[in-house]
Amino acid sequence: MTTKAIKDMLGRSSLTPVHEAVSILLSELAKITKQTTTCPLPDALDRVLACDIQSPEDLPAHPRSTMDGFAVRAADTFGASSSMPCYLEIDGEVAMGQMPEGTVTKGKCFRIATGGLLPAGSDAVVMFEHTIPVDEKMLEIVKSVGVGTSLINTGEDIEKDAPALPKGHLLRPQDLGLLSGLGIAEVEVFAKPQVGILSTGDEIVPWSESPPPGKIRDINGVTLGALCTRLGAAVTDYGIVSDDEDIFFSTVKQATKENNIVLFSGGSSVGMRDLGERVIDKLGQPGILVHGVALKPGKPIIIGLTNSTAIFGLPGHPVSAMVCFEFFVKPALRSFAGLSEITAENKATVAATLDRNINSAAGRLDLVRVQLTKQHDTLPLATPVLGKSGSISTLSRAHGYFLIPEDAQGIHENTIVKVHLLQ
Amino acid sequence: MTTKAIKDMLGRSSLTPVHEAVSILLSELAKITKQTTTCPLPDALDRVLACDIQSPEDLPAHPRSTMDGFAVRAADTFGASSSMPCYLEIDGEVAMGQMPEGTVTKGKCFRIATGGLLPAGSDAVVMFEHTIPVDEKMLEIVKSVGVGTSLINTGEDIEKDAPALPKGHLLRPQDLGLLSGLGIAEVEVFAKPQVGILSTGDEIVPWSESPPPGKIRDINGVTLGALCTRLGAAVTDYGIVSDDEDIFFSTVKQATKENNIVLFSGGSSVGMRDLGERVIDKLGQPGILVHGVALKPGKPIIIGLTNSTAIFGLPGHPVSAMVCFEFFVKPALRSFAGLSEITAENKATVAATLDRNINSAAGRLDLVRVQLTKQHDTLPLATPVLGKSGSISTLSRAHGYFLIPEDAQGIHENTIVKVHLLQ
Repeated sequence: MTTKAIKDMLGRSSLTPVHEAVSILLSELAKITKQTTTCPLPDALDRVLACDIQSPEDLPAHPRSTMDGFAVRAADTFGASSSMPCYLEIDGEVAMGQMPEGTVTKGKCFRIATGGLLPAGSDAVVMFEHTIPVDEKMLEIVKSVGVGTSLINTGEDIEKDAPALPKGHLLRPQDLGLLSGLGIAEVEVFAKPQVGILSTGDEIVPWSESPPPGKIRDINGVTLGALCTRLGAAVTDYGIVSDDEDIFFSTVKQATKENNIVLFSGGSSVGMRDLGERVIDKLGQPGILVHGVALKPGKPIIIGLTNSTAIFGLPGHPVSAMVCFEFFVKPALRSFAGLSEITAENKATVAATLDRNINSAAGRLDLVRVQLTKQHDTLPLATPVLGKSGSISTLSRAHGYFLIPEDAQGIHENTIVKVHLLQ
Repeated sequence: MTTKAIKDMLGRSSLTPVHEAVSILLSELAKITKQTTTCPLPDALDRVLACDIQSPEDLPAHPRSTMDGFAVRAADTFGASSSMPCYLEIDGEVAMGQMPEGTVTKGKCFRIATGGLLPAGSDAVVMFEHTIPVDEKMLEIVKSVGVGTSLINTGEDIEKDAPALPKGHLLRPQDLGLLSGLGIAEVEVFAKPQVGILSTGDEIVPWSESPPPGKIRDINGVTLGALCTRLGAAVTDYGIVSDDEDIFFSTVKQATKENNIVLFSGGSSVGMRDLGERVIDKLGQPGILVHGVALKPGKPIIIGLTNSTAIFGLPGHPVSAMVCFEFFVKPALRSFAGLSEITAENKATVAATLDRNINSAAGRLDLVRVQLTKQHDTLPLATPVLGKSGSISTLSRAHGYFLIPEDAQGIHENTIVKVHLLQ
């Protein structure tokens, strides 16, 4: 077990690099067995598959036309062109939604609409637009087709027994579409991660109350709850808990029994950090995984694990708490949700031009909030939103953020930065 | 009113360019008055503000320390350094969550924790880490501070009456955080867009049924419904409706009365297109806005408007239907949701290297589905997912798509493309 503590006065020494902290956390969480449940298809949007799905049948079950036109034997159209058309006899018609009757024989064709089943004997469709009716029975064809033109073959979308969707896959709208096309009425998915959230600190009152002098309203409870909800977690709000050690410990302990993840936030004061550390230590093995990371804002985070519940002691400053959520809680949530790495790894960003120089201390990852301004005919402009990490309005004004890596001491004006949207 | 029809045999002429079609649609929708409703803060996640919000108070209401340390008069620390420290008398302590008692006078300081209210007389905080206690009453300070160091001033997060959030803003977790910090218990938001969805076509059966030969299960109803749900719409499923013109017309008419947006999809056959066109025409003014766009897949879309309901006749092929959703229905949904353009305009993408040449016809926008493969130390590889637009599995296998613009005839291998994720 790797345990790191914030000890150095100027924060230079024992802080864990962000990527190392994430990797310590995720390798511990990978050992935890996740619960699964059966979910009817209509409720499965944004759930994560708990097993591989094979196609139970060929889709489509029969070859179908993908165009309005005429089902033909491709060989019959060989060499046809506008200057040298070929002629086929219209010998039948495919009724929509029904098995075609009859067979297309040499020199003949059947009228067919998009979605119609290909009649026996035919192996291609000539689009309506490439034909000219001569009379009711005779058709002029001005373009030759190859075998398979303008049709979708049996199993061409997906074949029986072929892998349809893998375990760990997030079920997006198009995936539900595929499952409905295959008639799969229910799927085995991972249980929704359960997250317990509590705030602590003598200066915090519930946001719905009017704070007396010296106190402020809780901001983190609402923000963290909404972040979890958006990621598909079931959230339990434990409210504002006294920082009296016995009361705090028993509430956190109860929350760890009832959830996969427990988040507490409560001031970045040394006293709160010590309390958080002692409480996670007392909860049992493996205990504290990471204490303090080389990240600004977000340095004083504590990450722990007891039995199979992850515990995050988040900084009290709203910006720091949200940044820690983004870097550490989100990957943990995805792990409990059962999301495969493949699904999680692509991160879309907006390329933007930085509009001023930004300094940064080497050795830590810096997160810079920015507003984006559309520019005519060039990349948007990224303007840093300056402000303290206690200032929630800076997050509300920001469209996203970019990162200054550990090995850089700053970024120059006009550099193109990759902005992660806070959408 | 601009009405365009697909008339040319080879699709070369009267197709509306995508950007023009979107702009025709959005300028019509902008004229429609949107309904609003009052929403309690805890339910306001992902809703859109229907009015500007000003801050009702200063946040914070009083200056607060952002560090554990000592509240001082900055001038008293002038010139202090490790080699030349200054000394202050510890004259009091700020209790958390309470108004500080007493005043910091010249040569004195108060102990203060993160979040504590700044006592009268003080104008800066010296971090604990930059102090050395001499005894219980005397403190050595090894670093000078300027006025305002390590504190957040009254209204520094946001000032009373300052703009907090604008009309048309999507309420993200951090925005709810700001509103909770300001004690705003309910907000005026736009009503959720109501979307009615119906599928038509004699070959379609409900996905939950086993299709007899010649028929296939409905895919678009499920996919389109989930796409709408994800964008915060309230969806009504009108099921599979006969393509008998009277029945179809009366169902669509009923749906237009009950919704802001009606989607029908039902085969790309000429017959269905004609039916869709006639039905939208009969529904009343302004009628058809766009018929046929220079987009592949997705060409045969019909976009109409009757009273204040937008109607989309989507191609029956699942890929075409989803692409049309992405380009046309999504902006319409955002318009009905009241989202401001500013909020909607930033589109995050993943830069990736195309792994093969792709051809494209000039004059139309081509959408190419791709899988992304992580590469060591370089951009991910984008591999086109080839397959017909009737093949739903191609969308399920795709991580995203990139676009080939109207003026290009293709894209070369090794070009860096911007992939829009289908997450």
